[in-house]
Amino acid sequence: MKIKEKLTIQDPRALCVKLEAFIKNTVEEYGREGCILGNSGGIDSALVAFLAVRALGKDRVKMLFLPERDSSSDSYRHALEVANALDVPMKSISLTPLLRKMGVYKLEPSPLFIPRSIQERYVINKHKKYDDDESTTFMKTLKGGGSNVQLRKDIAYYRIKHRLRMAILYYYGEMENYMVLGTSNRSEKMTGLFIKYGDGASDLEPLAGLYKTQVYRLAEYLKLPRSIIEKAPTPDLAPGLTDEQTLNLSYDRLDTILAGLDMGVKREDIAREAGVEMSSIDYVEELIKVSWHMRNLPLEPGNILT
Amino acid sequence: MKIKEKLTIQDPRALCVKLEAFIKNTVEEYGREGCILGNSGGIDSALVAFLAVRALGKDRVKMLFLPERDSSSDSYRHALEVANALDVPMKSISLTPLLRKMGVYKLEPSPLFIPRSIQERYVINKHKKYDDDESTTFMKTLKGGGSNVQLRKDIAYYRIKHRLRMAILYYYGEMENYMVLGTSNRSEKMTGLFIKYGDGASDLEPLAGLYKTQVYRLAEYLKLPRSIIEKAPTPDLAPGLTDEQTLNLSYDRLDTILAGLDMGVKREDIAREAGVEMSSIDYVEELIKVSWHMRNLPLEPGNILT
Repeated sequence: MKIKEKLTIQDPRALCVKLEAFIKNTVEEYGREGCILGNSGGIDSALVAFLAVRALGKDRVKMLFLPERDSSSDSYRHALEVANALDVPMKSISLTPLLRKMGVYKLEPSPLFIPRSIQERYVINKHKKYDDDESTTFMKTLKGGGSNVQLRKDIAYYRIKHRLRMAILYYYGEMENYMVLGTSNRSEKMTGLFIKYGDGASDLEPLAGLYKTQVYRLAEYLKLPRSIIEKAPTPDLAPGLTDEQTLNLSYDRLDTILAGLDMGVKREDIAREAGVEMSSIDYVEELIKVSWHMRNLPLEPGNILT
Repeated sequence: MKIKEKLTIQDPRALCVKLEAFIKNTVEEYGREGCILGNSGGIDSALVAFLAVRALGKDRVKMLFLPERDSSSDSYRHALEVANALDVPMKSISLTPLLRKMGVYKLEPSPLFIPRSIQERYVINKHKKYDDDESTTFMKTLKGGGSNVQLRKDIAYYRIKHRLRMAILYYYGEMENYMVLGTSNRSEKMTGLFIKYGDGASDLEPLAGLYKTQVYRLAEYLKLPRSIIEKAPTPDLAPGLTDEQTLNLSYDRLDTILAGLDMGVKREDIAREAGVEMSSIDYVEELIKVSWHMRNLPLEPGNILT
């Protein structure tokens, strides 16, 4: 259990102090007044909000809630719970009119009058449809969809939502001289489970070094609302699809593989400790490889003039 | 003239071969079909378009022209000249309806019925208004505008345009499994003369290693249209304002300073060769420092768990 030990946070108090210092020092170093973040109702943005309020005080943290046609109604309820727990006002701005104006919704059938449960089944079936023996749907989206025109449309359809959210966060942040807080964690960053220049785009990312299972530990330590900690993580981009369905792997297993690779543990030992086949390790290594360009922004030619 | 020699491209042919290989290899490595770029009518996007067509062939390069209310009518004419020279179709999508829907234009008076020359004078006077003995307007915008509410609004007003352009480029690119080509050069990247997650956001940046004066040399070598090479570089975000007015320094001097600093030349020698006071070197060094976060996306805490 060598790897799982590494995933345990020995001293959550000390870690919070470091993360809060990172937020406070960055804001001061760049002469900004505070921070703004998108509150999605998920655990990552909730944890970042808690850390930011501890670091800067509640008067220097702003929150936007940025839903659109396909967002779950749970998201609003959870986002509001976080805002209330921190006593920070939350401004809600719907992306729907913008996405409609851009023609984005024409790419997907309108869910009006269709019960949410049927929408969710539709999305999950559609998601599975792209899976095959060669590759998962998620891997295919990371690779750009290849020659599958419908999958490419789906990719464009989901990603523009996160990019618009980013543009709106910066717009409101800049009016106040605030920095934009990012909420990606290490499990997402290493596997490409974020949108390049969407939710992956921010000024500072306090959770960038934490695996998802560590995010949970810290959320417990800081006593985040139970509803936030207990719900299944989802990108909330399409009805019903969770992170773990997207990844085809539980976070527990994923994090054991990622941490094992980070620590240089032998692949056989990683597989044993994670309780997975070797093929799962190959799969995670491939995710790391194909998402490399998402962590190296943008790609540049090497020393071209020498 | 040691530094200026370094700025001279000895073998433009060999350099083009390297830049074209970078584009072609990146697209192949990531399994994409081609590249898309925003054609602004400026020299950087024109040069990238020429390189991309040479690298991939004209059938694998797409171009969008993305104007809005404040864009110069020259931009369209120049952008079209590039598209025609390369025989690549150019799709034009106005951002104006979106910016209006978002309420962005409420931040600035409508220029309707006001002659362009007066608009330009208004912008230049407004720009100068923020200059003082302590700092230039550009430096102040890089620092977020401080306590100046009007300047902060201006920042939000200009930057959202570039971020929307980016989102639209990715949207159209993703539908085709194309990568997004960035057009920033080294002079812009080092001084922060780009919009973070706006025009600075792309999949690959072929010109990232070239100073602006080298972009000109390569543009001459590849025989770009004269009108593109001869016009004054401008971000085209507000009527009339050029890059060199924004920077408060000519590109010739800026590049000599940047290349001198890159080469580790003594500050006295840089000042002599660039023909500037020592204060200009301090100024450029400060630009490099305050724009650091724009090149390191996003900022992360150091090794927080160890």
